[in-house]
Amino acid sequence: MTTTETTTETTTEDSNMATVVSSRNGVDTATLFATLDAVKQAPAAAQFQFRAHNQWVDGTHSQSTISDYFGVGEERAHDREFVFDADHPAVLVGKDNGPTPVEFVLHALASCLTAGMANIAAARKVTLTEVRSTVSGDIDLNGILGLNPEVRNGYQQVAVKFVVKGDAPESVLREIVEQSRSRSAVYDVITNGVPVSIDVETA
Amino acid sequence: MTTTETTTETTTEDSNMATVVSSRNGVDTATLFATLDAVKQAPAAAQFQFRAHNQWVDGTHSQSTISDYFGVGEERAHDREFVFDADHPAVLVGKDNGPTPVEFVLHALASCLTAGMANIAAARKVTLTEVRSTVSGDIDLNGILGLNPEVRNGYQQVAVKFVVKGDAPESVLREIVEQSRSRSAVYDVITNGVPVSIDVETA
Repeated sequence: MTTTETTTETTTEDSNMATVVSSRNGVDTATLFATLDAVKQAPAAAQFQFRAHNQWVDGTHSQSTISDYFGVGEERAHDREFVFDADHPAVLVGKDNGPTPVEFVLHALASCLTAGMANIAAARKVTLTEVRSTVSGDIDLNGILGLNPEVRNGYQQVAVKFVVKGDAPESVLREIVEQSRSRSAVYDVITNGVPVSIDVETA
Repeated sequence: MTTTETTTETTTEDSNMATVVSSRNGVDTATLFATLDAVKQAPAAAQFQFRAHNQWVDGTHSQSTISDYFGVGEERAHDREFVFDADHPAVLVGKDNGPTPVEFVLHALASCLTAGMANIAAARKVTLTEVRSTVSGDIDLNGILGLNPEVRNGYQQVAVKFVVKGDAPESVLREIVEQSRSRSAVYDVITNGVPVSIDVETA
């Protein structure tokens, strides 16, 4: 399979093909496989804890900071601190200072599936040229408004529509999506649920 | 209960107390109750669809745009378009252009519970002075790496730690957290799961 015609990989003048292939889809596959091997040797390295620190601002507006996390045996931090606002739009009695919390869930799902596809395609020597998606979630706010006890609070269903292009037959591209789904952390969280504990300090 | 000593509400020189109380915690309670009444009269108004449009950039890096949504019977848009990057850090073979997808899930949970608390406190005439939280999620990446079939892909557990202060006894503040939990869309999605369909177009 040639990757020279339709490619988004880092191209270099270097004649060392291994270097070029190593960065297919922007994925450093050599490092990816080395990481897999390292975790095989030391499974505890794969224990991570991610965190968001949230501060209420006003009304339905709050702001989260995402920076520190634990992984590969130690406390770590992102290269920079990420800050995100969330709010409700005016129609939901907010001031629209950010997306609603439930919209961030859709972004999380889209980005998780897409990251997996880039990695999996690279591992399978498929060069992707385009991955786009729209993730939509249907929600009946009679639930959270407490107006109908038979309506759940959250999304009733979520639909992901992907457009995927690359130098492989349709069946292979579909297999890449399916493999990403089957290994997606956010897909698992959203479809299978996770226990959540809530601790409150008022002092 | 007086709200004049510790307050984050909009204070005005206006002697019309209703105006002042109407914006307790930055929540326009008059509009909140009017919205509830309107939905009681026309339950179909509460049918919403939220969306995120995602575009793969490179490697594990993708970008979502959040703008359009459907609600109260028509297509709508946020006041402005919100754009968010997601990526993996270097230790997870990415370039750290944004938080990981799973971190956005934590932000979604924190901001949903917090928005609910502001609304519920306002409805109960409690003025909040501080709401902070740290949401953490434990994940064993042996799951998504496919190294241990007994390990799930997503978080094994999520823990929310709130600090809540306001002009009400501890028991009342705790009840506000509990009521928010019981009416939170994101809490429901994360703890109970939602069916997700995936559609792929390769043309």
